[in-house]
Amino acid sequence: MNATVADALAHLKTRMADLHGLLDVANFLVWDQRVIMPPAGVGHRAQHIALVQRIAHEKLTDPEVGRLLDEIDAGSLEPGSDDAGLVRLVRRMHAKAVQVPVELRGEMAVASAEANPVWVKAKETNDFALFLGPLERNVELRHRYIECFGPQDEPYDVLLDDFEPEMKTEDVTRIFDEVKAELVPLIAELRDREVDDSFLHGHFPLDRQVALDHEVVEMFGHRPDSWRIDPTEHPFASGAGIDDIRITTHYYEDSLKSLFSTMHEYGHGLYEHQIPRRIAHLPIGTGASLGLHESQSRMWENLVGRSIPFWRFMYPRLQEIFPGQFGNVELERFYAGINRVQPSLIRIRADEVTYGMHVILRFELEQDIVNGRVALRDLPQRWAEKMDEYLGVEVPDDANGVLQDTHWASGLIGYFSTYLLGTIMSVQIWEKIQEEIPDLDERIERGEFAALREWLADNVHVHGRKFTPQETLRRATGSTIDAKPYLAYLKRKYGAPVTA
Amino acid sequence: MNATVADALAHLKTRMADLHGLLDVANFLVWDQRVIMPPAGVGHRAQHIALVQRIAHEKLTDPEVGRLLDEIDAGSLEPGSDDAGLVRLVRRMHAKAVQVPVELRGEMAVASAEANPVWVKAKETNDFALFLGPLERNVELRHRYIECFGPQDEPYDVLLDDFEPEMKTEDVTRIFDEVKAELVPLIAELRDREVDDSFLHGHFPLDRQVALDHEVVEMFGHRPDSWRIDPTEHPFASGAGIDDIRITTHYYEDSLKSLFSTMHEYGHGLYEHQIPRRIAHLPIGTGASLGLHESQSRMWENLVGRSIPFWRFMYPRLQEIFPGQFGNVELERFYAGINRVQPSLIRIRADEVTYGMHVILRFELEQDIVNGRVALRDLPQRWAEKMDEYLGVEVPDDANGVLQDTHWASGLIGYFSTYLLGTIMSVQIWEKIQEEIPDLDERIERGEFAALREWLADNVHVHGRKFTPQETLRRATGSTIDAKPYLAYLKRKYGAPVTA
Repeated sequence: MNATVADALAHLKTRMADLHGLLDVANFLVWDQRVIMPPAGVGHRAQHIALVQRIAHEKLTDPEVGRLLDEIDAGSLEPGSDDAGLVRLVRRMHAKAVQVPVELRGEMAVASAEANPVWVKAKETNDFALFLGPLERNVELRHRYIECFGPQDEPYDVLLDDFEPEMKTEDVTRIFDEVKAELVPLIAELRDREVDDSFLHGHFPLDRQVALDHEVVEMFGHRPDSWRIDPTEHPFASGAGIDDIRITTHYYEDSLKSLFSTMHEYGHGLYEHQIPRRIAHLPIGTGASLGLHESQSRMWENLVGRSIPFWRFMYPRLQEIFPGQFGNVELERFYAGINRVQPSLIRIRADEVTYGMHVILRFELEQDIVNGRVALRDLPQRWAEKMDEYLGVEVPDDANGVLQDTHWASGLIGYFSTYLLGTIMSVQIWEKIQEEIPDLDERIERGEFAALREWLADNVHVHGRKFTPQETLRRATGSTIDAKPYLAYLKRKYGAPVTA
Repeated sequence: MNATVADALAHLKTRMADLHGLLDVANFLVWDQRVIMPPAGVGHRAQHIALVQRIAHEKLTDPEVGRLLDEIDAGSLEPGSDDAGLVRLVRRMHAKAVQVPVELRGEMAVASAEANPVWVKAKETNDFALFLGPLERNVELRHRYIECFGPQDEPYDVLLDDFEPEMKTEDVTRIFDEVKAELVPLIAELRDREVDDSFLHGHFPLDRQVALDHEVVEMFGHRPDSWRIDPTEHPFASGAGIDDIRITTHYYEDSLKSLFSTMHEYGHGLYEHQIPRRIAHLPIGTGASLGLHESQSRMWENLVGRSIPFWRFMYPRLQEIFPGQFGNVELERFYAGINRVQPSLIRIRADEVTYGMHVILRFELEQDIVNGRVALRDLPQRWAEKMDEYLGVEVPDDANGVLQDTHWASGLIGYFSTYLLGTIMSVQIWEKIQEEIPDLDERIERGEFAALREWLADNVHVHGRKFTPQETLRRATGSTIDAKPYLAYLKRKYGAPVTA
């Protein structure tokens, strides 16, 4: 690397550290708003978040960043190095950011902010017609956004790329079609299996749930004094840096949902927590994509948290904490109960098997929306048809159908597929871990998670966002995304009678 | 106002709204750090705060701000208007900010950050020698800071001006000498008076204290959903805007200190809460000075919170909450107990009468430090001499003497006097309120605080930072600072036997 390149790189790093710091601050402001802010503070908070995001955007689109990137001869950098990863990522972020006029970004932010309360009301009153106008506005703005990037063979690619970089609609379609072909018959087969999960409903005192969630997060493990768990309406993972991880959960007095959502958010939190310190202040110092993030959360929630080795260890403790609920339920029944497959209306409450079909339905509808193959007013009907076809479920109303998710109200079109892509990748990663840690199950049965955490640190989290999600996955597992391990896992786990 | 001025003003406002927003964000990041941040997050947080403050500093010192100020003909603005106030304030802030090189600011920030942990250790181990080096460094940097502003008749003026704008050392000296002349004999007279406050020591269950603090803040009053009270090591008031006020307190199981500190912080919080909405996003949208802020906090803590009208209303409730402590203590004894005068070592635990002498001692020592009239290594001895002279108290060690406060470790020289200036002003304001709300005592005896809150809003808080502190006080009371009402109040309240 010659002196000019080194100098340009140093300047780029300084600027990009500012950018990353500002985005950390903006995320943290959102955390506070969702978790503990006095409700009346919402006005200031919106202004403060917009201010910090605007300055971050100015840092990214500054013409000097373009000049520095031009000065850096990427060929002189070792492709696997932090520097090369940073330059690749910033080049990509800068190129995308400068395509979109500030005015359009502003319109999108306003439309999203305005659509959200309308969606809340529409969902409450079960009135899709109310939401139609704001939805049309969001879709129209997404079309204008897509146009910023010039003519496209597949316009939906532009949206998808924001959430799962360099993933193409065509690839996702192929993967999801493969999944659909196997899942639909599997679900049809499993739907009538009788599974008793009555013991999962009852009374779970909140203080014991809070203690349990903390106990599980401590057991899974992290560096001391660096995590918080707080209650919120909707669970999420956030924080202000690798030593300040904040996950949230929603406690229900009548169920153990909070425990599983805490394990899910732990996976997200651990990804950010284990980003290498030397890159944590830069844009490459975060998870590689939403999909890879979801691979981590789904892994801890399902591959650990709904597995028999984990419950061999944990179930006696759970019985101790909730003796009235579980004292007379043997492990096999409990395990079958938490893995009960039952087609249902709501994505976020779906079991491991039916979950994928909820995502595929949304992915398909989004493409119809973007390509104008469906009139927005016909969405409820199209939704109901697909629910019937894929899950054999009848949609009673829009609140339990097309209005259930917040994403479209926020203009987030292209986001949903990452949930299933992540789930698919989680199984690929899990199989690689099992290969490299042959006694993984035995370790989990002893409540030992250090080797698992360290494997993830060394093989996934270590890369941060230096590579594309698929290159990250390839470096971790030897392969890019492949639905076969996921499908085989589901059939293995659920195809046979579920026993402990 | 002609079009050029109007245009320059509009641009100035946009930029200054960004500045103010960034400072709000930085303050909020400090709140989180002190209140709920996982301790390991301190590294990121320091970087994030420095980043936001640096960008704020760039916004303030931008040459374009100077150009806009030059374009605005101040003579064309009505002197009492928001615009004139904003221009005056920004002119002043900009002029001061551009005098100080960024490097020096950086050195000051680093020296302060480095001195603080040394001070903590020195205080813990009662070892002033340990703190001497960092203190010398802070003092040396303050000398360099003063030099940035050119030759000074009174170098200490430069430091004082940062905390109490446009107040001169000479004026403070005159006021404090007047106070000292009256306080020293008054304290000597009161020190041997026998007052029983044994009932203020005992067991006060934390949950009841928490509920009591919330009850008092609700009773004093504020807009709904806009305040938080959290526990911290050291109480303070902060927030992220006029609708997001966050005060903190420290609970002691064996005393009611938290109640009085909560009333104190309520006063700070209410000042920011009642800043007019139309200026809240601008630099003029905050308290006028530390001194005026303290006038508000001391007013609610002492003139309300240690008054007989307040306790006529509140004492039955207190007896109900802590029947074991107060069930057999009549109101007069309670009132005498919370107003007991007793010279002591620690400023923050001092009563209303002796408090002033703690401040005067520090103000005098600071001038000796800045003018080189005392070698820093001799500070402990000088401290002990003054404590003996002013309060008749023997200093047993440096932890209870010169090392007790954090201010000098943070480089905050020039800050202390605002505590007493504020206390003095609080009585001037209180007497004006009593004049304008003749039945104020009766209202307080009924637990009604709306008229008091509204008077403060209309006569003090309304001005934000549009005027100098003294002009703000003059507009509220008709007079600039004057110690006589304060001294008369103390003699009236404490000179006679304290009875209810």
